[in-house]
Amino acid sequence: MTVATTVRAYAAQAADTPLAPFTIERRELRPDDIAIDITHCGVCHSDIHQARNEWHDSLYPMVPGHEIVGIVAAFGDAVTGWQPGDRAGVGVFVDSCRSCDACLAGLEQYCERGMSPTYNGREQDGVTPTYGGYSERIVVDRRYVLRVPDGMDSAGAAPLFCAGITTYSPIRHFGVSNGERAAVVGLGGLGHLAVKFLAAMGAEVTVLSRSPGKIDTARALGAGDVVITTDAAALEAHRRRFDFIIDTIAAAHPYEPYLRMLRRDGIMVQVGLPDPAPLNPMLLVNWRRRIAGSQIGGIGETQEMLEFCAAHGITADVELISIDAVNEAFERTIRSDVRYRFVIDMASLRREDTA
Amino acid sequence: MTVATTVRAYAAQAADTPLAPFTIERRELRPDDIAIDITHCGVCHSDIHQARNEWHDSLYPMVPGHEIVGIVAAFGDAVTGWQPGDRAGVGVFVDSCRSCDACLAGLEQYCERGMSPTYNGREQDGVTPTYGGYSERIVVDRRYVLRVPDGMDSAGAAPLFCAGITTYSPIRHFGVSNGERAAVVGLGGLGHLAVKFLAAMGAEVTVLSRSPGKIDTARALGAGDVVITTDAAALEAHRRRFDFIIDTIAAAHPYEPYLRMLRRDGIMVQVGLPDPAPLNPMLLVNWRRRIAGSQIGGIGETQEMLEFCAAHGITADVELISIDAVNEAFERTIRSDVRYRFVIDMASLRREDTA
Repeated sequence: MTVATTVRAYAAQAADTPLAPFTIERRELRPDDIAIDITHCGVCHSDIHQARNEWHDSLYPMVPGHEIVGIVAAFGDAVTGWQPGDRAGVGVFVDSCRSCDACLAGLEQYCERGMSPTYNGREQDGVTPTYGGYSERIVVDRRYVLRVPDGMDSAGAAPLFCAGITTYSPIRHFGVSNGERAAVVGLGGLGHLAVKFLAAMGAEVTVLSRSPGKIDTARALGAGDVVITTDAAALEAHRRRFDFIIDTIAAAHPYEPYLRMLRRDGIMVQVGLPDPAPLNPMLLVNWRRRIAGSQIGGIGETQEMLEFCAAHGITADVELISIDAVNEAFERTIRSDVRYRFVIDMASLRREDTA
Repeated sequence: MTVATTVRAYAAQAADTPLAPFTIERRELRPDDIAIDITHCGVCHSDIHQARNEWHDSLYPMVPGHEIVGIVAAFGDAVTGWQPGDRAGVGVFVDSCRSCDACLAGLEQYCERGMSPTYNGREQDGVTPTYGGYSERIVVDRRYVLRVPDGMDSAGAAPLFCAGITTYSPIRHFGVSNGERAAVVGLGGLGHLAVKFLAAMGAEVTVLSRSPGKIDTARALGAGDVVITTDAAALEAHRRRFDFIIDTIAAAHPYEPYLRMLRRDGIMVQVGLPDPAPLNPMLLVNWRRRIAGSQIGGIGETQEMLEFCAAHGITADVELISIDAVNEAFERTIRSDVRYRFVIDMASLRREDTA
């Protein structure tokens, strides 16, 4: 079985240049590898942060993209259970040490030796750069490849691999049970999926948003209530109301108005990475409140989420774009001008004359 | 049974005047009341904050003191199970609504209608001011009176009623089990008791302190290790080491160096009330860490703590003072010049010619 090693991609060559056509090498298949022809790739806000070196750890050239759905094209000799043509997905990481406590517990995202990010990182050899899903094809060890359930729309499935698991995992881990009162801060790529998950699990869901324009769409997603966070009286009316808050906002913002809305023993989970903000410990002490963080999810939990989504008819609401619109999509994502996730139709890359 | 209603006390008359002799009224016994002749009262840092109106909610005249141990002098007709001469204790609150979810769950400290603080507060009538333990006698409903176990030193028991339960409760609630790695930030009135509790529960205890002078005493209290927090290399060497950190520092300080010392799924509990400090959500997200707060403990849990202390020979290490030294003790407490808690010998108040 032969596998093409040179594939078309879109890459950032520096922090201050737009993404542009580029070619990269994909490794020859190892026994446990699966080659996936990418059909869809979501545009995550972290793609922008990293393409522009806003986290000060960027490696160039960079091919972003870690919300990947595609078709199995080929696989190594040790791979069983997959057939050419099967739909497969890849998320935020493509490898991990496989031997630390975290990896052994199925928490590969917290690998103690460091997982290999799908892009802007290194393979476990510590040397080979990784390139993401803004490309024709990716080669990934079978242990880090997910199965896309039958009947699930590929475009709508792509954002599940980062935005989806990032919200699903803390909802599961920190325990929202049927009927608890939950709130979602921010109604973007992550937030709109958090609303769907919480509603499907039977929680009473409230969306906390700055935008009055999102009231109707929030309700359509499954929210029972929407609180406009610029309305101080509305915030006060919801003081000590929620058992669980998931904060998906990527831009810097205060913790305080949200913490005040947690009831006794409530927990607020941060899944975004905004700049630091002041935390008043009195807001935690007074009602034994907690703040936690959570980072994506493990491979097993990601597959569990996909099955949950299939059972409940959940996918992301997406706007499909062609690859040549990706720079514009970055700008619109920064302005929150998308409902709720851009997904690149990777067929558009194959049509380009860039190879 | 007659009960004196006028008792000697020490009071602050304003934020900027020292405590001085004063007389207050204690109510006539109601059927469920117990009158306690106070023998010992601990000096808590919050006594200073409130006497000086540093929390901007002070009511004057103020009689501080909520670490109270004494002798039952009298009780109302409905009180059973107590005898004159029994040793009794009173902590941070003297009443609560008794009907909200928190009260019904034995979490009176989180009473949804507001518990009645032992001083600088109001009775449940919302009108009558409360006066604390820097006084000869206190009258408290039996439901809020604790039993001091036989054989326990009264002076060493007094700080258990605030410093003790404030650290015991989160250690129990957030679950430090045998053999976990725990750290105590700050080795003062609260911290030294946290070390004793954690060691008695079988945890591997590390003290995190600015003061190299506390290394030997920390080990004597039960700490297996001491990390001097001004030593950046030592902090780095303990990165991702602890399952549980209890932060007892009352002065403003950063969260970051301590959060970095939490391992995956670790939790840091705030029990002090310093000013706000910046919190970087990345430190939570990266290893699914948590920060929580906790406020004293319920009545049932306080009695449980007292029994735990009796079983393990735990009391506070105290410096006994007479009431006329209380203003100096405030200054020394602010300078952390005490090992580890001042306790007022209330017999000294009875000897004063102030009545």
